[in-house]
Amino acid sequence: MIWVNMTHGGTGILPHMIEIKPTRHELKSRRINLDTGRENVAVISRRSTALRPEVFRGFSRVELRSNSKVLLATLLLTDDDSLVGPNELGLAEPAFHRFAEPVGTYVSVTPAPSPASLDAVRAKIQGRTLGASDIDAIVEDLTHFRYSDMEIAAFLVSSAGFMTSGELLALTRAMSKAGTQLKWNANVIVDKHCIGGIPGNRTSMIVVPIVAAHGLTIPKTSSRAITSPAGTADTMEVLARVDLSVEAMKEVVAACNGCLVWGGHVNLSPADDILIGVERPLSLDAHEQMVASILSKKLAAGSTHLLIDLPIGPNAKLTSASEAMRLRKLFEFVGDHFGIETEVVTTDGRQPIGCGIGPALEAQDVMAVLANEPLAPRDLLEKSLRLAAHLLERDPALRGGAGYARARELLESGAALRQMQKIIEAQGPTPYRAEVGTLTADIPAAVDGVVSTIDCLRLNRVARTAGAPLDKGAGIKLFRKIGDRVDQGEPLYRVHAFEPSQFELAVAMAQNDPGYLIDGHDSPGGVRA
Amino acid sequence: MIWVNMTHGGTGILPHMIEIKPTRHELKSRRINLDTGRENVAVISRRSTALRPEVFRGFSRVELRSNSKVLLATLLLTDDDSLVGPNELGLAEPAFHRFAEPVGTYVSVTPAPSPASLDAVRAKIQGRTLGASDIDAIVEDLTHFRYSDMEIAAFLVSSAGFMTSGELLALTRAMSKAGTQLKWNANVIVDKHCIGGIPGNRTSMIVVPIVAAHGLTIPKTSSRAITSPAGTADTMEVLARVDLSVEAMKEVVAACNGCLVWGGHVNLSPADDILIGVERPLSLDAHEQMVASILSKKLAAGSTHLLIDLPIGPNAKLTSASEAMRLRKLFEFVGDHFGIETEVVTTDGRQPIGCGIGPALEAQDVMAVLANEPLAPRDLLEKSLRLAAHLLERDPALRGGAGYARARELLESGAALRQMQKIIEAQGPTPYRAEVGTLTADIPAAVDGVVSTIDCLRLNRVARTAGAPLDKGAGIKLFRKIGDRVDQGEPLYRVHAFEPSQFELAVAMAQNDPGYLIDGHDSPGGVRA
Repeated sequence: MIWVNMTHGGTGILPHMIEIKPTRHELKSRRINLDTGRENVAVISRRSTALRPEVFRGFSRVELRSNSKVLLATLLLTDDDSLVGPNELGLAEPAFHRFAEPVGTYVSVTPAPSPASLDAVRAKIQGRTLGASDIDAIVEDLTHFRYSDMEIAAFLVSSAGFMTSGELLALTRAMSKAGTQLKWNANVIVDKHCIGGIPGNRTSMIVVPIVAAHGLTIPKTSSRAITSPAGTADTMEVLARVDLSVEAMKEVVAACNGCLVWGGHVNLSPADDILIGVERPLSLDAHEQMVASILSKKLAAGSTHLLIDLPIGPNAKLTSASEAMRLRKLFEFVGDHFGIETEVVTTDGRQPIGCGIGPALEAQDVMAVLANEPLAPRDLLEKSLRLAAHLLERDPALRGGAGYARARELLESGAALRQMQKIIEAQGPTPYRAEVGTLTADIPAAVDGVVSTIDCLRLNRVARTAGAPLDKGAGIKLFRKIGDRVDQGEPLYRVHAFEPSQFELAVAMAQNDPGYLIDGHDSPGGVRA
Repeated sequence: MIWVNMTHGGTGILPHMIEIKPTRHELKSRRINLDTGRENVAVISRRSTALRPEVFRGFSRVELRSNSKVLLATLLLTDDDSLVGPNELGLAEPAFHRFAEPVGTYVSVTPAPSPASLDAVRAKIQGRTLGASDIDAIVEDLTHFRYSDMEIAAFLVSSAGFMTSGELLALTRAMSKAGTQLKWNANVIVDKHCIGGIPGNRTSMIVVPIVAAHGLTIPKTSSRAITSPAGTADTMEVLARVDLSVEAMKEVVAACNGCLVWGGHVNLSPADDILIGVERPLSLDAHEQMVASILSKKLAAGSTHLLIDLPIGPNAKLTSASEAMRLRKLFEFVGDHFGIETEVVTTDGRQPIGCGIGPALEAQDVMAVLANEPLAPRDLLEKSLRLAAHLLERDPALRGGAGYARARELLESGAALRQMQKIIEAQGPTPYRAEVGTLTADIPAAVDGVVSTIDCLRLNRVARTAGAPLDKGAGIKLFRKIGDRVDQGEPLYRVHAFEPSQFELAVAMAQNDPGYLIDGHDSPGGVRA
């Protein structure tokens, strides 16, 4: 309670003492059917009764408060009473769900200061090294959606320039603690992870059933595609449900030794999911951030033995062995620090793995390998066996060097296929059909010769334009890989789609530049297409 | 025209050849009453007929295209047909105005690649130095609203760490060319600029009439407050219109030798306005960005002689003489390069200038000084005379060293006041009243002693909470400055407001911590309040 001398200055009325309670002027919440993704968005009327919206501008940040709930949001203004009236507060869908209060709740709206941890980001911008408590505070604020996109960008860019090993460890630890922490009853929990960038590279869906069939525990969580035509979660979803709860995931692992679920649903390292949402559109890919991102998730997932796949190639994330070496050391350093036995292998990242690009087409490749079909893609088969062998070597009961033979035995005997069918059944039926796109067009070679280069980024764009990953059946089926001979007019690959408009755009894009370089005797430097 | 082999794979229907034109599927535009500020925002239905909105996520970027118009926007999704139907495209107000096409226009929507110049930003993040063409491209994309907030943040943060002198010159030049270019008929165009941060520092409104009364041309453009309780444009608006067109501004200058208008309306250095919109919420204040920001506007404004005011104080933007020296050198270096004669003075930035904080209260101070009232604030008077003297020295016709005496003569004779009245009349009547807030409360000293420190940031927050700058009459009137004696219970300052809720919050805030430090004989270290 505060007593102040309150006078009506200028009017000559007597000063008098009044009691002032700092009151909050509240608005009645309503829901606005707008999907604003990661950002919390609130809308108020420009003639709001409870506050003077002129003190805000579009995209300024406000603090919403109701009982014990607090949420930071980005504010938009409207003059349309049917959208948000003068005594109302509109909440776009993500903000509404995160605030988790019923429609009609009275909510106060005040200008929000920046999250306190942004001072540390500013210090980092000035070149200072951050302490663990600074980084903990940043991750805490990130996890609670207190950072706007521009604030997230400021943190990422300030850290992309340099990050000390202490900062890297602190960031990894803080992110790993921010969400779900999985615990398992086995001593050895194996896991594998590829840094991505190679289309069709669905080795996890072969490695997991092999390793699980052997008897090791491999609770695999995977991501969905963000900028690529398919993530492992998208492809697995062609065969089984992947959005399992933590409890359901544990049941599957208890029954099958392994699983193939979508990590996003399990909420491992939610801060990382938020950072990735800004890293990707900005195409930031600092090694330190990649290591912190991957290892924070593996720590949260309870992995004890981790195999990292680093593809190297001209269009891959890593373009040279020396770059891969630096990244390998970083993985080993952080993995060792947190007691995860981390093994890093480099693989051929010059071209797609397998023939299919897009969820249903990739699922066909995977099932062909597991079923030991004679025409199953050899590169996917061999790479999967190699990775599975590394993981099987972690079994103390297996004789040193026997991993590859054991992996092969499990695959060829059909044990891996049966294990995969068991996992699929345990995860439950998918709402999606496995059918591949019925609109198809073959993209022909423009000249005779030998395929010398395949542009993974170009193929990704064609497959996405055709509708992948959301259209499960859309994508590309490759007929020629590097080193293959092709005659002019013979198809390099086939585009699959369901929707005519996307089909047309994808085909036009592929015709314009198919993403293949062909070395002919009359074109020693190679010809595009 | 592209011919492709189109088969209905899997259904057994005959393949046939069809003609495909890459068509665009267009949506009918409508307007959405949402003020999204700087960001272009578009809304589509999750069941959009023309494209598969699943390929987008909330806050992804899209390219809108209609005839020759192109606009990049941030996309939101809705399920509410009354907001945006399946065959419609909603444009929030700023996007609608920038797109400048009537409602009902058919617009294509495609996923937008990042602006091309973002590659240069990524290179800068990696530590590379940018060339002038890189910076030109960045400024071009910024000016055309092609950068999202997070992309702007990435550019600012990557440049905040280091910026070479070549980059600084290129950025200043590119920004100065991006908007309106003012040309004047005089050889000497004087201007002054303060880097800001000091409440009540309204010297421009005294310096301009003095210098204009002398006969020099001083076409002053000022900014509105973003994070402070008043900018010069907000305070001048208490007395006259400030949102003049370029043509109207030129007429005022032709008639009066000077003006005091809002720079935002004249569109000088629009890229800078966009950068500032992200710098402020992130509280970035790299010297290089400050110099590029200020000098790009002065170049665009056609200034030939510029006086820069650098206040130094514990709560000011500059806290030491050595920091001010570095910034001075930077202003001189860039000013010289572009042929602007730049003079930099350092001033006392330990406390507010004048007594008023907030537009109407500051306007009272200004008019008291111009009217030679005996109780007019001496610090505002003396600082204005000093700055005016520096500018008057630029007149070849004036004898060296005579500037101060001439400034004083113009003020004391009433010539400056008459010039100000002429400028006010020329700029036209304001819609605002000059009345100060009628709700008032005095904030008392908690102890006897001498005021040793005044926290400018705290006073700014109290004045803003009271309603400044949008409530012109809200703010603070100071009764005690540094060095003044005060007895316990005597008022340090008075809070003014119109709206009870804001008044209460501001008073509670001031009571909680008035922002004064008082040195008493029993409190040699000083007592807050």
